[in-house]
Amino acid sequence: MRLSRYFLPTLKETPSEAQIVSHRLMLRAGMIRQHAAGIYNWLPLGYRVLRKVEQIVREEQDAAGAQEVLMPTIQSADLWRESGRYDDYGKEMLRITDRHGRDMLYGPTHEEVVTDIFRNNVRSYKNLPANLYQIHWKFRDEVRPRFGVMRGREFLMKDNYSFDLSKEDARKSYNRMFVAYLRTFARMGLKAIPMQADTGPIGGDLSHEFIVLAETGESGVYVDNALLQKPIPENVDYDGDLQPIVDEWTSLFAATDEKYDPEKDEKPAGDVVNARGIEVGHIFYFGTKYSKPMGAVVTGPDGDEVVVHMGSYGIGVSRLLGAIIEASHDDAGIIWPESVAPYTVGLINLKAGDAACTKTCDDLYAALNAAGVEVLYDDRDERAGAKFADMDLIGVPWQVIVGPKGVAAGIAEIKNRKTGERSELPLDAVVSRFAG
Amino acid sequence: MRLSRYFLPTLKETPSEAQIVSHRLMLRAGMIRQHAAGIYNWLPLGYRVLRKVEQIVREEQDAAGAQEVLMPTIQSADLWRESGRYDDYGKEMLRITDRHGRDMLYGPTHEEVVTDIFRNNVRSYKNLPANLYQIHWKFRDEVRPRFGVMRGREFLMKDNYSFDLSKEDARKSYNRMFVAYLRTFARMGLKAIPMQADTGPIGGDLSHEFIVLAETGESGVYVDNALLQKPIPENVDYDGDLQPIVDEWTSLFAATDEKYDPEKDEKPAGDVVNARGIEVGHIFYFGTKYSKPMGAVVTGPDGDEVVVHMGSYGIGVSRLLGAIIEASHDDAGIIWPESVAPYTVGLINLKAGDAACTKTCDDLYAALNAAGVEVLYDDRDERAGAKFADMDLIGVPWQVIVGPKGVAAGIAEIKNRKTGERSELPLDAVVSRFAG
Repeated sequence: MRLSRYFLPTLKETPSEAQIVSHRLMLRAGMIRQHAAGIYNWLPLGYRVLRKVEQIVREEQDAAGAQEVLMPTIQSADLWRESGRYDDYGKEMLRITDRHGRDMLYGPTHEEVVTDIFRNNVRSYKNLPANLYQIHWKFRDEVRPRFGVMRGREFLMKDNYSFDLSKEDARKSYNRMFVAYLRTFARMGLKAIPMQADTGPIGGDLSHEFIVLAETGESGVYVDNALLQKPIPENVDYDGDLQPIVDEWTSLFAATDEKYDPEKDEKPAGDVVNARGIEVGHIFYFGTKYSKPMGAVVTGPDGDEVVVHMGSYGIGVSRLLGAIIEASHDDAGIIWPESVAPYTVGLINLKAGDAACTKTCDDLYAALNAAGVEVLYDDRDERAGAKFADMDLIGVPWQVIVGPKGVAAGIAEIKNRKTGERSELPLDAVVSRFAG
Repeated sequence: MRLSRYFLPTLKETPSEAQIVSHRLMLRAGMIRQHAAGIYNWLPLGYRVLRKVEQIVREEQDAAGAQEVLMPTIQSADLWRESGRYDDYGKEMLRITDRHGRDMLYGPTHEEVVTDIFRNNVRSYKNLPANLYQIHWKFRDEVRPRFGVMRGREFLMKDNYSFDLSKEDARKSYNRMFVAYLRTFARMGLKAIPMQADTGPIGGDLSHEFIVLAETGESGVYVDNALLQKPIPENVDYDGDLQPIVDEWTSLFAATDEKYDPEKDEKPAGDVVNARGIEVGHIFYFGTKYSKPMGAVVTGPDGDEVVVHMGSYGIGVSRLLGAIIEASHDDAGIIWPESVAPYTVGLINLKAGDAACTKTCDDLYAALNAAGVEVLYDDRDERAGAKFADMDLIGVPWQVIVGPKGVAAGIAEIKNRKTGERSELPLDAVVSRFAG
């Protein structure tokens, strides 16, 4: 993409509305703009990153055997009356009346809808386990939305729901998601620690939060240092027994400061360090809480009706962008991990008015594109300083800097955004450096 | 994907709620399930096709220079008061009050939101032309939703909005979308004819509908036969002059029966044939209808403020699935064009109980997957007849049928879903037949 054509309204000033660094940087880098309190427009750069994050979530869900569906944003209130949650759910639920006077709502979560799909379409234990996920927009009418996409009202979530014949089988579904979550966050360059959690309004008796570590995180956490060093499971056999992996991760101490107070509570075993974190995922097993009142039953192996055991699993997809930035930035701007970077290479033409320099850059741009490298090309007629500042702010992992002197010498400068390291590379070696 | 694990609740019986063939087949093939009137759940097979259709739309928008954004579903009513449409828009608009008593709405269209983005972020004519698109869910509270995804309340739409300095430039933006639309629908195996349209409630003085031809289409159309033969533009230079292409397509007669009555109106020139069609896209130029009241201005080349000229362009993405099925089905079920088919190959194991047959099928399935072929593997323990019926219903373009006799002879049967043609192929030639 050529910057001269890109809809990328970067800001030099820090917007006063933003209290935390990810919110400031997303506004300054032209990723988002607020439409109303807690409701955002995603501009091209921001939406590009959001789709990359979404795709990693999708790939790991697919690998773990979940199947993608899409449920509506607008739901009928009737199902929530069946489950008994319609009156319990507070003002966070956006309640709507349609033109025929029917009670509807904008889904804050989808347990009722998916249970309805299940009970209408599955009859036999032979179709279990089932695990349906969606990546879709939800609305929760927060009383005080803030921190940009970290606590918005309209937000993108991956939510899924598992159905099993027994608690034992449900535990296996739970474990698959536990491991998939470890892999998902690691692929985004994040260190996410599972911590035992309260089950809250969704109910149930087995639950973990996944907390991403970031110096500017919203809450304090206490984590066994060994957890921070633990390698992420690779080549997982999701049909195999995952309990050992889960046990390995849950046997070490990890708790939010809501759950552990070093002043009062007993000192946990292990080398526990204090850090800050951001919740990005939450998994629950809740048994028959919805399947029982809503009649989600299958015929079991012996012909009897069995109420299915369910779990639900959430990832805050739009929130993850904020979390990644909180975990990876410096004074100059965002530092994207390559896996979610909007572009891999930022090509900077230091002198747009110079014919030879522009020709070299145009050729490099075409060659990088042809080689499948995602490149953002700053072809604008701007000062070099402004170009450096914008490229640092946007956070593209690699900068390829080309000026008249370099062109004369056949050299481009390569800068690594994260380390700041600079090196020189012959112009004809640039494409092969980044291709494949 | 193994059918034994796939969440694919096909139906033998035709659901009584469905009046048209695409609705019947989408329900029977387990693609969708109704949640409430005009509101659907997309099950794995349906969502898979929806994403393929969406991706074609996206690629052609990108090629034409439009840039992808995402605007919220829930909008503030204030912007609609600025444009003057809040009171004019009827009961189709789903009006909502949030917890603080603010008037909100579920966006039926996004002219106001995008104009607000533009006016807050673009100052100079140098940033024009701009063209922002999104592929997102909209809600229109139809008084009588029907025909499945063809006239739903919650539906997926590609909508975009162009901004130009003058009417002449806006015409160029319009032409880019005109040509992109021709290419988009053709890639889905559809014959879509642009027809001059009323501009309706969005306003403006230049507008075309794109009507897909289908025997079971909702409305009658009259089309010059020469239009049906016209090749789709290839290798389009979207920076070049597209007016000749647009003129070529608009100079021949094409009209819906609302606009042309052969009993009353003068007979048009050309070899005009009568057919049936479905509207899938609509493009408008509407000048300064929104930019003027909302103050979307830029500084022009001579330093004066110029009110920008806008156009908007819609494609009914979820509706397209209905249109494709209306245009491509037979008594046995759906016939997917390869470009949007959920899977390319349906692999049928005729005897799941036979060890040699199952081993051969498992190996073929693994090899096809490894070669990047999208394959749906019917590994269920079912009668051959049921498997044939389901695979025909789902409409996968190619069936690879493997039974004990074939395995003994080293042969698979290949069936083309569209033509019904059958042929035999050595088992070791199956992968190369479909790979790459």
